[in-house]
Amino acid sequence: MTDAFETLKKSIKSLAEEKKYATLRDILTTMNAADVASLFEDIPEETVPLLYRLLPKELAADTFVEMEPDTQHMLIKGFSDNELKEVVDELYVDDAVDLVEEMPANVVKRILIQADAEKRKMINTILQYPDDSAGSIMTTEFVELRPKMTAEEAILHLRRSGINKETINNCYICAKGRQLMGVVTIRDLIMASSEETMEDLMEENIISVSTLEDQETVARQFSKYGFLAMPVVDREERLVGIVTIDDVLDVMEEETTEDIEKMAAIVPADKPYLKQTTFDLWKSRMPWLLLLMISATFTGFIITSFEDALSKYVVLTAYIPMLMDTGGNSGSQASVTVIRGISLKEVEFRDIFRVIWKEVRVALLCGLTLAVCNFGKLLLVDHLTILVAFTICLTLFVTIFCAKVVGCTLPLIASRLGFDPAVMASPFITTIVDAISLLVYFQFATRLLGLG
Amino acid sequence: MTDAFETLKKSIKSLAEEKKYATLRDILTTMNAADVASLFEDIPEETVPLLYRLLPKELAADTFVEMEPDTQHMLIKGFSDNELKEVVDELYVDDAVDLVEEMPANVVKRILIQADAEKRKMINTILQYPDDSAGSIMTTEFVELRPKMTAEEAILHLRRSGINKETINNCYICAKGRQLMGVVTIRDLIMASSEETMEDLMEENIISVSTLEDQETVARQFSKYGFLAMPVVDREERLVGIVTIDDVLDVMEEETTEDIEKMAAIVPADKPYLKQTTFDLWKSRMPWLLLLMISATFTGFIITSFEDALSKYVVLTAYIPMLMDTGGNSGSQASVTVIRGISLKEVEFRDIFRVIWKEVRVALLCGLTLAVCNFGKLLLVDHLTILVAFTICLTLFVTIFCAKVVGCTLPLIASRLGFDPAVMASPFITTIVDAISLLVYFQFATRLLGLG
Repeated sequence: MTDAFETLKKSIKSLAEEKKYATLRDILTTMNAADVASLFEDIPEETVPLLYRLLPKELAADTFVEMEPDTQHMLIKGFSDNELKEVVDELYVDDAVDLVEEMPANVVKRILIQADAEKRKMINTILQYPDDSAGSIMTTEFVELRPKMTAEEAILHLRRSGINKETINNCYICAKGRQLMGVVTIRDLIMASSEETMEDLMEENIISVSTLEDQETVARQFSKYGFLAMPVVDREERLVGIVTIDDVLDVMEEETTEDIEKMAAIVPADKPYLKQTTFDLWKSRMPWLLLLMISATFTGFIITSFEDALSKYVVLTAYIPMLMDTGGNSGSQASVTVIRGISLKEVEFRDIFRVIWKEVRVALLCGLTLAVCNFGKLLLVDHLTILVAFTICLTLFVTIFCAKVVGCTLPLIASRLGFDPAVMASPFITTIVDAISLLVYFQFATRLLGLG
Repeated sequence: MTDAFETLKKSIKSLAEEKKYATLRDILTTMNAADVASLFEDIPEETVPLLYRLLPKELAADTFVEMEPDTQHMLIKGFSDNELKEVVDELYVDDAVDLVEEMPANVVKRILIQADAEKRKMINTILQYPDDSAGSIMTTEFVELRPKMTAEEAILHLRRSGINKETINNCYICAKGRQLMGVVTIRDLIMASSEETMEDLMEENIISVSTLEDQETVARQFSKYGFLAMPVVDREERLVGIVTIDDVLDVMEEETTEDIEKMAAIVPADKPYLKQTTFDLWKSRMPWLLLLMISATFTGFIITSFEDALSKYVVLTAYIPMLMDTGGNSGSQASVTVIRGISLKEVEFRDIFRVIWKEVRVALLCGLTLAVCNFGKLLLVDHLTILVAFTICLTLFVTIFCAKVVGCTLPLIASRLGFDPAVMASPFITTIVDAISLLVYFQFATRLLGLG
C-alpha cells in the first residue's frame, strides 16, 4: 500500500509539472482527505496552493483539517478573504478551534473575522477552557431534542438541522435550561415507531464529564465504556458540548507518547519528532540528563570511599557494569510494568502490598536463576575463585531483589502523592539501583573477602 | 467519582448480606455494564451469581461481555443450559468469539451447542483467522444493502434487520457475490429524499482492509482517517465483515502495552499484571535479563584488559557509572523517540539521514552542555587536576555523541530488516553504549594521562 502511494505521488508530481490540471483534479477527487494531506506534506511547497485549489469544496475543507500547521499557515497566507471564508464555513467548530490555537495572532484575527457570528462565539467559548480539559477538546455542535418530541418529529428535526452537526449518532434530550436528561441513538430513532416520544426512548442512565475534567480521564472513560461520544456538562449540569471518539483517539496517542517520553527521561514536547528543531530537542532532553548526571555523583562517592579496597582487588571492578546494568534492567521491568498498569487503571495504590509481594517472589526467582547462571560462568569462563564468584553472585541476587522492590514501589508512591508515575521509570530507577548495587557489592566484598 | 463508586460498593455488599434483593436490583439496573462488571470483580465470588441473576436480560449480557475471563468461567459453570443459551443469544458475534477464545475446551463445547446454527457458523469463521489479524477482530454482523434500493427501502430494511447488527452507522452496498461497491452512513440515509437510490448516495471511494492484515495496521488506519468502522474483504474483494472502533481501541491499548514492555526488555504477555502468576512474570522477564547480563561480559573484558592501568589511576573508576549512565540515558532518549515515531508512522527508514543529522546536532549541543557542567563540578567539587577532568569530560562528550547516533540508527535499521524496532530501546542500547563509553574512556586515559 505504501508503495502504491509512492507511485501515485510520483505521477502527481509529473502531472503537476506538465500542468495537466483536469487529470490531477480527477485523481485527487478519488482520494481520501488524510491521504491528500499527507501528499501535500511531500510535494514542493509552491505546488500545494495550486493542487489545493483543484479540490472540490468539501474535500478541500476536510484536507485542510488534516494538514500540518505549517502547511495550513502557508495556504492561509495565500488565501483571499473569500477563500478563507469558504474554508472556515466548512470547518466543524472543534477543528476551527484547533486551527486557531496553532496559528499566529494576525492569522487568528483574519480567521475570526471570516467566521459567522455564531461560530465565532462557539470558538471563543471553547478557547476559554484550560489546555487538556474536556472543554478544550469538545465540540459545541450537537443534536439536542426535547423530551416530548416524537420519533417522527425528531427525525424531521434531524433532517432540517443535522447536516451541520459533527455527529448525529447520539442525540441528547434536554429539559428547559439545557439540563441533560437522556440520550437517544440514531438507531433507536430508526427502530422506534413514529409516535414514540423521546422520553419513552431515551436512556437516562448516562455518563457525562465536566468541562474541566482532564482529557486523559475522558479518554479512559471512552475505552472503558466503548462510547462513540460523551456529553460534557458545566457545573450546573447543563449540556455544553460533546466529545467525539475521533478526538479521543488523538488524545490517547498524545498521552501515550507523553508517557513513553517521560519514561525515557524526556520532557514531553507537543510536536512530531521531525518537526522539532535541534534546540527544541535539546530543551526537552537536557533537564533529566543533567539531573541524572549529577545524581550519579553518589555512585562516584561510593566507589571513591572504597578506592583503597578496590585497588587491592582490581578484578572486582570488571563486574561493576554487569551488576549495575542487570540491576537497572530488573528495576525498570518492574517499574515500567507498574506504570503501565497504573495508566490503564489496572493497578492502584491500594494494591501496593499485593504488588510488592508479587515482585518479591519474581525477584527471588529471577535473582536465583541469574545468580546460578552467572556463578557457573564466573568459575568456568572467568576462572575466578569460588569465594570471589560467590561474592559477585550474592551481590547480583540482592541487587535484583532491591531493584524489583524499589522499581514497583516508587511509581505507586508517586501516584499516591499526585506526581506522574511515568517519571519513576528506567533512568531514575537505574540511578538509585546503581548506588544500591555498589553499596551491597562493597559490603559483601569487605565481609567475605576481607577488604577495607 | 472513584470514591462514590467505593461507597456504592460498600452499600451493595451490605444489601447482599441483608438479602434485600429488590433494592439491589433497582440499584444495579441504574448502573452501566462496565461498572457492574468491575463491581463483580471486587465482591466475594459466591455473591456474584446471585447478583448476576438479578440483572435485566440485556444488562446481564452486556455485563457478561465486560467481565474478566475467570469470572465468566465461574458463572458459566453455575449456569443451566437455558441460562447459557440466554447469554449466548444476546452476545454479538465478535464478543462470542472473544469468549470462546478464553474458555477451556469443555466450556467452549457447551457454548457452541447453545448458539444457533447461524451464529455458530459465524463464530467458527472468525476463529479460523490468525491471531492479531483483521479477520480475528472483525464481526460478521453488518448491514448490507443493494445498489438499487431507495433510501426508503433501505430504512425499512434496517428497521426489520438492524436490531441484531452491532453497528448500523455504516451500511455497505454490495453487488451480487458480495463485491463491495460503496458505503452509506445512516446520516446519509436520514438526510436523503426517500426515492434516492444507494447508488446515488454511496461513497465509492472506500478504504478497506484484507482479512489477513495485521491488527496494528488496521488500528493505524482508524486513527489516520478517523473511521468508526472499516470493511474487511477477502482475497476476491468480497465483503466478509467489519471492524468497529471499540475493538480498535482495545487493540491500540494492547499494542501500546506490548511496545512499552518490549522497550523495558520484557517479553510481552497478554494478561493484566495482577492476573499474571509469578512464573508468568519470570518467563517474560528472564530471557532479556539473561541475554543482557551475558552481553555485559564484554564491558567486563574491556575493564579487565585495562586493569593494570586502572590500578595506577584508581580515581578513574569512580566516574565509570556516571559515564555509562549518562551515555545510556542519552542513547535511550534518541532510540525511544525514534521508536515512537516509527510506530506512529511519523518516521520511516528513508528518513534515516535526516534523523542522524538531527541527532548529531542535538548530541553536540547536549554533549557540550553536560561536559561543561561536569568540568566545573570536577574541578570545583571533586578537586581533580585539569588534565584528568578534561579526560573525563572529553569521554562524556564522545560517549553522548556515539550514544545518540547509535540510539537513533538501530531502531530504523531494525524496522528496515523487518524486526520490531521496540526491542532496540534502553536496555539494549545501554549495553552497547556501556562498551563504547569504556573503550573511549580508556583510549583517552591512555593517550592523555599516559596510562597503559
